Amino acid sequence: MHKRTVSGFSKKNKSEKIDWLAEHYFSDNGQLKEEWQSFEHSDSDLQKVFDAFSENTVANYYMPYGVAPNFMIDGKVYAVPMVIEESSVVAAAASAAKFWLSRGGFQTEVRSTVKLGQLHFTWSGPSEKLQAIFSEIEAELCQDAKPITANMEQRGGGIIGMELIDFTAEEAGYYQLRVRFETCDSMGANFINSVLESFGDSLRRLGDTHQALRDYPLEIVMAILSNYTPECIVRAQVSCPVDELEGACQDMDGAAFAEKFRKAVRIAEIDPYRATTHNKGIFNGVDAVVLATGNDFRAIEACGHTHAAADGQYRSLSHCTVEDGVFTFWLDLPLAVGTVGGLTKLHPLARRSLELLDQPSAAELMSIIAATGLAQNFAAVRSLVTTGIQKGHMKMHLMNILNFLGATDAEIKVTQDHFTDQIVSFNAVRAYLQTIRSGSIKTI
Amino acid sequence: MHKRTVSGFSKKNKSEKIDWLAEHYFSDNGQLKEEWQSFEHSDSDLQKVFDAFSENTVANYYMPYGVAPNFMIDGKVYAVPMVIEESSVVAAAASAAKFWLSRGGFQTEVRSTVKLGQLHFTWSGPSEKLQAIFSEIEAELCQDAKPITANMEQRGGGIIGMELIDFTAEEAGYYQLRVRFETCDSMGANFINSVLESFGDSLRRLGDTHQALRDYPLEIVMAILSNYTPECIVRAQVSCPVDELEGACQDMDGAAFAEKFRKAVRIAEIDPYRATTHNKGIFNGVDAVVLATGNDFRAIEACGHTHAAADGQYRSLSHCTVEDGVFTFWLDLPLAVGTVGGLTKLHPLARRSLELLDQPSAAELMSIIAATGLAQNFAAVRSLVTTGIQKGHMKMHLMNILNFLGATDAEIKVTQDHFTDQIVSFNAVRAYLQTIRSGSIKTI
Repeated sequence: MHKRTVSGFSKKNKSEKIDWLAEHYFSDNGQLKEEWQSFEHSDSDLQKVFDAFSENTVANYYMPYGVAPNFMIDGKVYAVPMVIEESSVVAAAASAAKFWLSRGGFQTEVRSTVKLGQLHFTWSGPSEKLQAIFSEIEAELCQDAKPITANMEQRGGGIIGMELIDFTAEEAGYYQLRVRFETCDSMGANFINSVLESFGDSLRRLGDTHQALRDYPLEIVMAILSNYTPECIVRAQVSCPVDELEGACQDMDGAAFAEKFRKAVRIAEIDPYRATTHNKGIFNGVDAVVLATGNDFRAIEACGHTHAAADGQYRSLSHCTVEDGVFTFWLDLPLAVGTVGGLTKLHPLARRSLELLDQPSAAELMSIIAATGLAQNFAAVRSLVTTGIQKGHMKMHLMNILNFLGATDAEIKVTQDHFTDQIVSFNAVRAYLQTIRSGSIKTI
Repeated sequence: MHKRTVSGFSKKNKSEKIDWLAEHYFSDNGQLKEEWQSFEHSDSDLQKVFDAFSENTVANYYMPYGVAPNFMIDGKVYAVPMVIEESSVVAAAASAAKFWLSRGGFQTEVRSTVKLGQLHFTWSGPSEKLQAIFSEIEAELCQDAKPITANMEQRGGGIIGMELIDFTAEEAGYYQLRVRFETCDSMGANFINSVLESFGDSLRRLGDTHQALRDYPLEIVMAILSNYTPECIVRAQVSCPVDELEGACQDMDGAAFAEKFRKAVRIAEIDPYRATTHNKGIFNGVDAVVLATGNDFRAIEACGHTHAAADGQYRSLSHCTVEDGVFTFWLDLPLAVGTVGGLTKLHPLARRSLELLDQPSAAELMSIIAATGLAQNFAAVRSLVTTGIQKGHMKMHLMNILNFLGATDAEIKVTQDHFTDQIVSFNAVRAYLQTIRSGSIKTI
């Protein structure tokens, strides 16, 4: 066996795992373990909780947990928790929140919270026959799933409806049952998947026993939720008279700023290359709140980007109009999130995030996330059409490097002055700091 | 002013920030501060580094850092670092890696690492005139950017070329300069943005001085990289004779498994609702490595999903064929990542991740990330077309809840037995545990 392969790695305890990695992949054995242990939580029971979130865990990866205050959303003021490793994002969100605080804040509207699931199967009989059978057996599928749906129904959710879709033109014998769910304040993945697997079991059984189905072989391919939930969508919006945009930019009046901003958003509507980056900025804000509240950012990203391409071209998720002297900027975003279930109670900081947000319902959390995404987008586009983003980015990046290199306050000042018109890179900053430290450059 | 709004929040130190939040948003003042401080790193200099990654930071958000060993990629064996809060992902990646280890491993091919940037501007003159002018001034733009590009050119990168695109049919007077870059082992965001802002400055200057441009007003709208980098793409692939798939599933032979697997991937090619979830699974693996190596998962997600919709319908990023008795499964993924710059050196665990991966080049990291995404996808689809995913998920979720509730080993055993045929929810598990603890159910 190759010397860097291993059997039974998952069976080793954490200490043994680190030892194995140190021996086979690192050169500094003892130091690695000490370093990774320094990231452990001092409460070993709590550490056990973090370790069990995933598998083969050997350390905690620290992500900065920050707060953007002054978010007025539907008349209520929030301090929004954000988990993000990229600089400028929280500052940008906070700045946009403050800007709109005195201009009416963010208005949101949750259209619905309907989630979707799919049962994929093949059947080789005639299509119209299957449609007829399904009207008969739909109730039976739901009845079989009662032990799973009973609790959710008590909370006001459950199965809303289903639709049989014929894909046989594209893949021989392939049909899909697309099922709509209401999952109340949970994201609902476990609930939906359990119901769909129950549907699969029922359909398998019916395939054996139901006369009309028995004539042709039926095979369940898979049963799983869909992360594309276009019905589970929220709109967040800011709006004000163009005059009130004075102050958004030093060098432009409100009307000029509004027009340039509109143009930048329009460009993201017509060019996919720009749309990708434009939407990436929105997700900087969105994902930070999704992470901070223990939700799943991969699900949110996949859904949002699919939505951005729904009309056949990948486009901006946000839109802007300047009409009759009024500036309006809005974002339509499908968001399947939960405020109960999953990690929301289990991760201590996710729990605190929901407390900070005043224990929102799933719909309220959708509003908060969408408002943060819109704020992020507003700040990014404002920066792009005025000063550009590099100045701020470089300043932040320089500070990161100086902190890493343990620069003193005096060293920081001199280095910042030096790099105002220089390209910041790790090596350049380290070299300059060495020059300072060697005494060639005075820091006072 | 509203009692929950604040001025100068960013100016407060961390302790003051927490005090303000505790007073205005939490009911348990002292406890919050103590709790968040318990997540601080004991080395205050290192903590300062984490705090400076973002703004208004009040705590560290712990994400599990795990390792998936036995990844044979292009003949070399890796243990892949993964940061992810979702259970089953690392286990799935490790399982797929082991499965393919004895079947030739993962083959990858990096097509190119070309990155893109855009200078957006408006000009109201005749289009053909602008095209002519650009051939003249292209060299001048590059010359002006020399102070920025010199270092990158020494490393073998720089500006590769540019193209003027006429969008005036869609937005009056709007043109775009789309610029191609090679950024070597860095992701290149700062480099690209600096060059583009320099181009913007040059063009502004030329708009004032260049005779042909001066006749019509020229306005720079914005200058920024594009996160959509379809040229910067890698293919990861696994392949083996269908016979060698025996063992992938207990209840099916290799041929039946291959056909069912192919069908599941085909479904994700033809149905966007399935494609979203299918690709979400790929990004579970991809993002975990992206995070662990200090790269930006929002950029990777935006690019990958735009690519998935490039032909006008959102589709699966992976594909599968079963031909002449050979099973082949592959993934084409655009990935703009870096192994120098950004947080790669600054985050201590990102630095260790790159050490664990043997200090890969950016191209090698692309291969590793794509292989992990493909492994993830293989494991997820295999699970879906065989046992379903709920059984494993529920087992994991149950353990998370039991850990959180501080269950003893004996309690864990009894509760696991009880929930084999029950729906797992936080409340149900807590209630059952209370029954055990009250003595109604014996644990031995």
